[in-house]
Parts: sequence; structure tokens; C-alpha cells
Amino acid sequence: MTPTSPSALCAQYGIDFPLFAFSHCRDVVAAVTNAGGFGVLGGAAFTPEQLDRELIWIDQHVHGKPYGVDIIVPAKFEGKGERLSKADLAARIPQDYRDYIDNLLREHGIEPDPTPRTGAPVLAGGTGSDLLQVALSHPIKLMANALGVPPDYMIEAGREHGIPVAALVGAKEHAVKQVAAGVDLIVAQGTEAGGHCGEVSTLVVVPEVIEALAAIGSSTPVLAAGGIVTGRQMAASVALGAAGAWTGSVWLTTEEAETEPHTVAKMLAASSRDTVRSAGRTGKPSRQLVSDWTDAWAPTSGQQPLPLPLQNMLSEPVLRRVDALAAQGHEGAQALATYFVGQGVGLMNKVRPARDVVLEFIEDYVAATERLSRSLPD
Amino acid sequence: MTPTSPSALCAQYGIDFPLFAFSHCRDVVAAVTNAGGFGVLGGAAFTPEQLDRELIWIDQHVHGKPYGVDIIVPAKFEGKGERLSKADLAARIPQDYRDYIDNLLREHGIEPDPTPRTGAPVLAGGTGSDLLQVALSHPIKLMANALGVPPDYMIEAGREHGIPVAALVGAKEHAVKQVAAGVDLIVAQGTEAGGHCGEVSTLVVVPEVIEALAAIGSSTPVLAAGGIVTGRQMAASVALGAAGAWTGSVWLTTEEAETEPHTVAKMLAASSRDTVRSAGRTGKPSRQLVSDWTDAWAPTSGQQPLPLPLQNMLSEPVLRRVDALAAQGHEGAQALATYFVGQGVGLMNKVRPARDVVLEFIEDYVAATERLSRSLPD
Repeated sequence: MTPTSPSALCAQYGIDFPLFAFSHCRDVVAAVTNAGGFGVLGGAAFTPEQLDRELIWIDQHVHGKPYGVDIIVPAKFEGKGERLSKADLAARIPQDYRDYIDNLLREHGIEPDPTPRTGAPVLAGGTGSDLLQVALSHPIKLMANALGVPPDYMIEAGREHGIPVAALVGAKEHAVKQVAAGVDLIVAQGTEAGGHCGEVSTLVVVPEVIEALAAIGSSTPVLAAGGIVTGRQMAASVALGAAGAWTGSVWLTTEEAETEPHTVAKMLAASSRDTVRSAGRTGKPSRQLVSDWTDAWAPTSGQQPLPLPLQNMLSEPVLRRVDALAAQGHEGAQALATYFVGQGVGLMNKVRPARDVVLEFIEDYVAATERLSRSLPD
Repeated sequence: MTPTSPSALCAQYGIDFPLFAFSHCRDVVAAVTNAGGFGVLGGAAFTPEQLDRELIWIDQHVHGKPYGVDIIVPAKFEGKGERLSKADLAARIPQDYRDYIDNLLREHGIEPDPTPRTGAPVLAGGTGSDLLQVALSHPIKLMANALGVPPDYMIEAGREHGIPVAALVGAKEHAVKQVAAGVDLIVAQGTEAGGHCGEVSTLVVVPEVIEALAAIGSSTPVLAAGGIVTGRQMAASVALGAAGAWTGSVWLTTEEAETEPHTVAKMLAASSRDTVRSAGRTGKPSRQLVSDWTDAWAPTSGQQPLPLPLQNMLSEPVLRRVDALAAQGHEGAQALATYFVGQGVGLMNKVRPARDVVLEFIEDYVAATERLSRSLPD
């Protein structure tokens, strides 16, 4: 059984070039879709009303071209199955964790909030089904879940509406499980990816996933993800057997992105060694820019992060304040601020329109293909 | 400035296929060279006399075809520049480290040595120049240094004898430094590699290194390394701009390799998630099979490894004993035993002759190239 080819995938999804772009920014999603790729809006941080507004805007700008929506619904989290309220969950955050963060803030010249704030358990999947209902009222052509096996209601809604369901995996065992659960598109994501990621590199996990799916007789298409910010890396992924690429980080420094200028500056200056895989933000390992915050939760720091979603509820309100201060030029806050991004940040060296990024991807992909072809004797 | 192409590299090194194979086993080196690739003997663990014997054997078996020698000479190590004896260095190993290991052994049903043994500071470069002199008395076509900038005497010997010098790097800054020092062949190695490795993945570090060398006007050829155990991954590397691939792990499970049967069995069964980057063996982070030994030196274990070469002097005699016991079927020893290998171990699923591995690499490389070419519209 051979996996779906790039051209078959393009035909299936109605696109010219199998470049999938994950972004929280509607402008990026529309620009990529309009340039012949496939934009996917990260919807998890929106309320249902906000998501509806974003998708209306996208519908008005893509003129029927295909796009998708990604909603994060983790398979495992603290309090799962217990129907806990935000207050119940907040009560599980130990006081010494709040003290630890307050000290960290003071060391960086930031006065802690007098009353402790707690973020919403957004990653606990509470609003996933509401967001999905909103998404289904738009002509989406893909729904994705970036964290674990998609919930039954997503798979069922996909079947009912004839919309393919994608899922991100970082290991071959997960790919096999997801395909068995009914997932239509596997994103095999390497450890170099920004955000939640596994330990295995893209160069290894992509062929490993493809081999594992072939062994169970599945031809489910596999996209490569993790570290891919250029067309040559996308070509490498197709050489590995992938049907295309799933990207995220590269869109953060586009003109359209809503990334704060000081964060953009940090990313443009960063080398690939300026990211770290840390559980200090959400409670699950995710890759982000190295900062005093990630150092504070390093395995050698003595302070182990809480599980998902507690760590996230604890850290998000603080990190939002830190981001706001950093944007105003506060030095301590800038040393603490971090941002989800992959190792590909080392190759992200200028701000460009999203459309130009797609066009450069295509050009670079073609050049890489020709380079590889020329390496064979005539 | 574009980097050297695969065909130019093949012409330069007198080979048919730009696959470089690092192995401690002369049979693998000869088999790869004879199959059209380039074998490189890892010489660091030999005495000068042993190395001479191995190279005489290789000379008799490759009939003038090209091969190389790799000698590990680290740029940084404890006691560098102090001309310390083994005893001086051994005195820097704290007693509580010996106690920690003794307890670990007892927990695994192994009685510690009554008198503490200390390994030779092999990684401290003491014998590097002697080994090099031996190597230079043979018709070697490459000398490599797998750890940091090659010492001046290696660069000078290379110039004098007209032999190219290769160096492994895990970050673009190191590549720039090495080329400035006179290195002729850069091996850009990703974090997925077995043995000493950096943090950045192959898919990212290869284009990053190529871009950095182009920026300084260098066309020094770049080989990709880290996780490469198949022809499709080698094709992906060439798509990224590499002139070829440098491999190591894949030869460990060949028929010719001297890997212990119980270690081969572990490797064949391992997935890519069964390796870990740990400083617990040599004092510098190196990738190896996960075991109770690597767990004992994990960042969360509370016991930080000593610097190079102290950790290595401490651990090698113990790990050799553990290996011997493991080979005899001792369960505790098998749980402790580890072995340098990369994440590509997840794709190493059968024992084959080294020659067949080369032939499968070529076949798979061609298939991957065709797959990528077919992805472009006619």
C-alpha cells in the first residue's frame, strides 16, 4: 500500500500546491488559500461568536476556495471525565506555584497581581463542540485537532457533513490509533515544531508513520510537519513519502500576522537553537522561544510544571501581562516573554506578505526537485 | 555561492554514490567502500598498533578504493591545557559519584568492584596525534574529527598530505568556524543522530548550515547527518542542498557489525522514541538507547553528570562490565545497558549485509527522487 501522492491530495482538496498553513490570523489563512495552498484557522482561542466573525470574513475573501479550522481538544487532561468547573480546577493549583511565579515576576521588576488570576481551562475541551458547530455553519473543507485523537463528535460530524478530519501525531503508534478512529489526514509532526510536539524529528517520524500505516494497509495521506519553513524542506518531506507539508511558524513573521513587533524582532534574530521544548507553558511539552520563563520550568530548575490544563490556567494570565509589558519595552518582561515557534525560526529572516511566502515555497520546491533529479546519472 | 553538488562530490572523492558510512568495524568500512560508497573507520577507541592492523586489513580488501579514518579530538574538556595525567584527572572524580553508581549497580543486582576503576581519558585527545600518524601511513582519503574544531596538527597534516579533513557540526556557527579553520567537508548533524549531537534537527540544521556558508562565500560541501538510515532520507537531504549523507547507526545492525546480539535485538525492537540525548555516558550530550543508566543521569534525577572526560572515565569501565553481564543474560545489566544510536533506530528492522544496505539505499534514493519529480505538473 503506497500513501496518497501530492497530486492526488491536491485533487482531493481542490488545491494547486499541497502546502497547509496553520494560523490564528484570518488574513494569513485567506492569503494562503488564495495563493493555491490550504489555510487552516486555529480556532481554539476564540469564543464561538468570535470564530463566526472570523469565518464570515474568510468566506468573503476566499470566494469558495478551500480552507479549514483547527480546534484543540486534548485526549488527556487533569479532571477529565469529572465535569469540573474552572473554580474546581483552580483549587487544584498549589499555592507554592503561585508564590514561585510571584517571585519570578519580582526578580524581573514586575509587581505580581494582588489577587491571583486564573486562566480559562481552554485546553480542556470545554468549548470544542460549540466551536465545531460554528465552523460547520461555514463551507469548511477540513477540521483538524492538534492534540491527540479527535473526539467522537468531531469524527461523526466529519462523516455527516462529508468533511475530512485531520489530526497531528508525533509518533507512529498515535498515527495507527488515529486512522483506526477514522481520521482522514495524518499530520506527522517532528520535535522541531512550534507548540505541542513529541520527541522524534520530522526526518524520522514521517517515514516511520508512513511505514506503520502501510503495514496496516492504510493509504491515508500523510503531511509532514515540524521545522518546515522553506520549499526545499517541503520537497524533502515529499521525498520522504509525504503528500505535502503542514506549516505554522513561518506565518508568524508575515506582514499579515498579528504577532507583536517585539516578538517578530526576536524571531527574526533567533537561530534554531533559541527554541526549547518546555512544559512550563501548558503542562505538556511545547516548543517556544527560550526565555527566563522556560528556564524557570526547566527539568533542572527543581520546579516541575503542573499537568494540563492547570499549568496553562496558571501561566496564561501571567504571560499575557508579561507580553503586554514587553510590548511597551519593559526589559524584565522581555526577558520573560516567550512565544510558540519551531526550530525553523532560524531560517525565518525577513517579514514578507503571506502570498509571497507561498510563491517562494513553490519556487524553492521546484529548485530542490531539480537539484535532486540532477544528482542521478543520466 | 551554491554548495558542491552530489555529482561534484562523487568526482572529488572517487565514489559512485555520496553515502559516507562511519563504523568501528573494518568489515563495514570495506563493504561500503566496495559497494560504491565511502567507508570511514572510527579509530578513537583503538591503540595505534590496533589501528594499524585494522587499516592494513582494509587496504587488503578495498583494492585502492577510497576510505577514511575518524579520530575524536574534542575542542573542550576538563583539564585541557593542564597536561594532566590519568591519575590527576581521576582525582577530580568526587567520591559521591562513585557511591551513586555503586548504589545503582546494587539496585540492579550487580556487586560493585571492590576497588574503583577509572577508564582512560580517551576523549581528551591524548592519543589523537599518534593515531593520526598511523592513519597517514595508509592511503586514507579523508580524516574526520567528530567533536569540535579539528586540532591544528590535523588540518596541517591534511594540507601536507593532500587529504581532505571533515568535521561534524550541530549548529551553523560551528560550521562557519570550522570552514575558517580550514575544514574541507562539513557534516551538518541533527539532534536525531546517535552519539554526540546538538539540539537542532537535521531538517533544519542542514539548510541553516548551507545558508550560513553561502553567506560567507564558501562552497564547502555539506553532508547531512542524523537519523539517516534509508535512501529516501538521503534523497531528502540532497533536496535540502546537501551533497550527500553521513551515516552511522544503520551499520550497527548489519551482519558485519560487532554489535552484541542482545544489543542488536534491542535495536531491532526499538522505536524512534527509545533513544535519549543524555550526558550520562561521556559528560557531553550524546544520543543512545534509553535505559536505567540514562534515567539515572536525567536532568530530573538530581545527579548532574561530570564534565568530559571525567564522566566518561567514570562510566566506561562500569558500562563495559554491564555490557558483558548483559550479553550473558543478566536482567539487571540488560536494564542498565545502553548503546549509542540515533532516532533512525525506529526504521532499522532487520539484519542485512552492509553491501545490501548500500544497494537498498541507492534503490530507495532513486524511488524517492522519482516520487518528488512526479509531484511537479508536467
